[in-house]
Amino acid sequence: MKLFDVVNVEDALSIIKSTFIQDLKVESVNLVDSFNRYLAKDIVSDINVPHFRKSTVDGYAVRFEDVISASTSNPTKLKLLGESQMGQVCKFDLDEDECVYVPTGAMIPLNAHGVIMMEYCDKLNDKEVYVQKNTLFNENIVEVGEDIKEDEILYKKGHLINERDLGVLAGANIKDVLVYKDLVVGIISTGDEILNINEEINDAKIKDINAYILYGQFKKMNLNPKIYPPVKDNLEDIINLMKQAINECDIVLISGGSSVGKKDETLKAIESFKNSKVFVEGIALKPGKPTIISSVENKLVVGLPGHPLSCAFVVESLIKPYINSLFECKEDKYIICEFEYNYHKSKGREEVLAVNIKNENNKVICMPIFSKSSTIKQFAKCDGYIRINRELEGVNKGDLVKVYLF
Amino acid sequence: MKLFDVVNVEDALSIIKSTFIQDLKVESVNLVDSFNRYLAKDIVSDINVPHFRKSTVDGYAVRFEDVISASTSNPTKLKLLGESQMGQVCKFDLDEDECVYVPTGAMIPLNAHGVIMMEYCDKLNDKEVYVQKNTLFNENIVEVGEDIKEDEILYKKGHLINERDLGVLAGANIKDVLVYKDLVVGIISTGDEILNINEEINDAKIKDINAYILYGQFKKMNLNPKIYPPVKDNLEDIINLMKQAINECDIVLISGGSSVGKKDETLKAIESFKNSKVFVEGIALKPGKPTIISSVENKLVVGLPGHPLSCAFVVESLIKPYINSLFECKEDKYIICEFEYNYHKSKGREEVLAVNIKNENNKVICMPIFSKSSTIKQFAKCDGYIRINRELEGVNKGDLVKVYLF
Repeated sequence: MKLFDVVNVEDALSIIKSTFIQDLKVESVNLVDSFNRYLAKDIVSDINVPHFRKSTVDGYAVRFEDVISASTSNPTKLKLLGESQMGQVCKFDLDEDECVYVPTGAMIPLNAHGVIMMEYCDKLNDKEVYVQKNTLFNENIVEVGEDIKEDEILYKKGHLINERDLGVLAGANIKDVLVYKDLVVGIISTGDEILNINEEINDAKIKDINAYILYGQFKKMNLNPKIYPPVKDNLEDIINLMKQAINECDIVLISGGSSVGKKDETLKAIESFKNSKVFVEGIALKPGKPTIISSVENKLVVGLPGHPLSCAFVVESLIKPYINSLFECKEDKYIICEFEYNYHKSKGREEVLAVNIKNENNKVICMPIFSKSSTIKQFAKCDGYIRINRELEGVNKGDLVKVYLF
Repeated sequence: MKLFDVVNVEDALSIIKSTFIQDLKVESVNLVDSFNRYLAKDIVSDINVPHFRKSTVDGYAVRFEDVISASTSNPTKLKLLGESQMGQVCKFDLDEDECVYVPTGAMIPLNAHGVIMMEYCDKLNDKEVYVQKNTLFNENIVEVGEDIKEDEILYKKGHLINERDLGVLAGANIKDVLVYKDLVVGIISTGDEILNINEEINDAKIKDINAYILYGQFKKMNLNPKIYPPVKDNLEDIINLMKQAINECDIVLISGGSSVGKKDETLKAIESFKNSKVFVEGIALKPGKPTIISSVENKLVVGLPGHPLSCAFVVESLIKPYINSLFECKEDKYIICEFEYNYHKSKGREEVLAVNIKNENNKVICMPIFSKSSTIKQFAKCDGYIRINRELEGVNKGDLVKVYLF
């Protein structure tokens, strides 16, 4: 039995980040298909939005000086030149004491200073309007480029396109978007006790749970997870499946088989490849210690713990931050909550605790869930998790903590 | 020009909920494809998980009474019967002063009371082990059904399957999941100034923005949005496109054309259908007032405001809660933040404010974004929004508010 060379989570992450600089593939997709994808290059707008001076109200476009003294008690009479049509270039030019009717969203005359809302105007007939209010410069007007400027960088490389971004991109005249191709993540569960989803439960065997949680985690990260059938603790079988997965995937994860006391087949399988290197054989994380980080044929191959919670938290702690850094995505979603429990831990290793959040007395409160690490139901119901620094000896009731939301 | 009959947001939502009781279609999908889908029926587990008594550690399974006096200074010698094999039924039965080696996850003898971790044991030879510790009942054991019980309701109808749920379902021997079929939501933008995504920008015309935000919003709700090409403000064209959309979709949304001052073509189009009824012609929401709620051929047809922000917030305020209620989904994700601004509003209508969140001095703070309602870039960047009750006259700096996250 080999003793682990345990490294800190940050060091493990640095090793992964500096060693596995993926050559990310890109693809151009239709605007709608860019939803929830990572941008592969900065997006620059070719146009001003709006590209014309636009009214934000239904009203009369006027010059500042013509309505300077207009009020309810002393309205100013203006000559109505006509109506600016939606979508059409406004051909009118204002001269002294002239106005043009402009509906919301239509173009205003080039030399108009403001638009007076209909409510403050009284149309006498097709040629004359009484205006009861003066105007500020650019009042009720959206200037050329006020929303988006030509040549402006709209989004940086690595940005994850949200639902509202689709509107911005549509407005900026963008039809196709260059995004990163989904990384393919191969998922292998090992163990004599692990059954394929289609096998009947028998003896003391259990269904493959880890593969499905990992699948969901990577789907959520917008990657392309690929579940392989679980493999028994047989070195040759593991090596063969690993070969196939390394060939078909960008990253390969193998859960189980990496804890002390179990046969250490994963490590042996990794080392059987000529072009392999093991960087880490254990991380200072609870749960998650029995984690192997290695390179096989220049691909990242990670041995994950067998317990579902541990497995999921190693992905949250190492693989997700690595993926985010690959995509140059800076997202780090957490909220601050008050911890509702006195929790003691040992110094020297980081801990991850699954928590539930509730709103109580106008405070956001979180409470750890307690369940054996081999059980899974409570974990599925929790809201997020906290990380407790390796130097700390615990968290006290009333402490403010960062909760990373699932 | 017709004056609006303005109703409160809650009343509008009640009308929609009570009138449009969709006959939701269901489908059975593979477990992995159930990720991010709504359950169409309760899921009941057919099995206990685990279905056998399982060790959570590598160690020796013992009876309580045999190790009652075991300690480091006075270890108890037990007869080692053998090893429980991973995945195999444990055939050993413990008699007086006997033990069995059990690896993590393997089955323990039926009459064992606890498992003593390897670290507290000393194996003399293949037949004898010194045990240096006593055991509690069920120590280091997961009982039959401790995670999931046979016949237990795992998830209620309407639950949105998350990444960890996939693991629970896999563990509970579930291969196929009955989920609701995606509702098809037809999206139509109207206006003489609106260009299709493939048209060249010209004159004072702008690209269709609303359709793309709506598309993203419904994708995020896991529905099936369908964008129709924008239609000019021409009654006949609107009626024809509406006919097609009502035929092809479960819900139809038409943005633009519903504000006072614009030609009220949407309303006319709706009323042109024999089997139509208009329920609401304006809601007490800012932004979002010019909203039409109607039934055409028994389908929900909503006229949305033309401004992107207003359009998006009406969907958040009316359509999303309606969809959630259809799927019996109780999710309502918000966090509590301190508002960083003195904001005044008029009584009588609800307001929705887009906000940005930041963590400052260990507090979660939010600040409204200010942008003209026809602009969109700032809106795309914000984190969420708050709702201010119609009875309130504003929010003060320092008030705690619920922020609904995008």
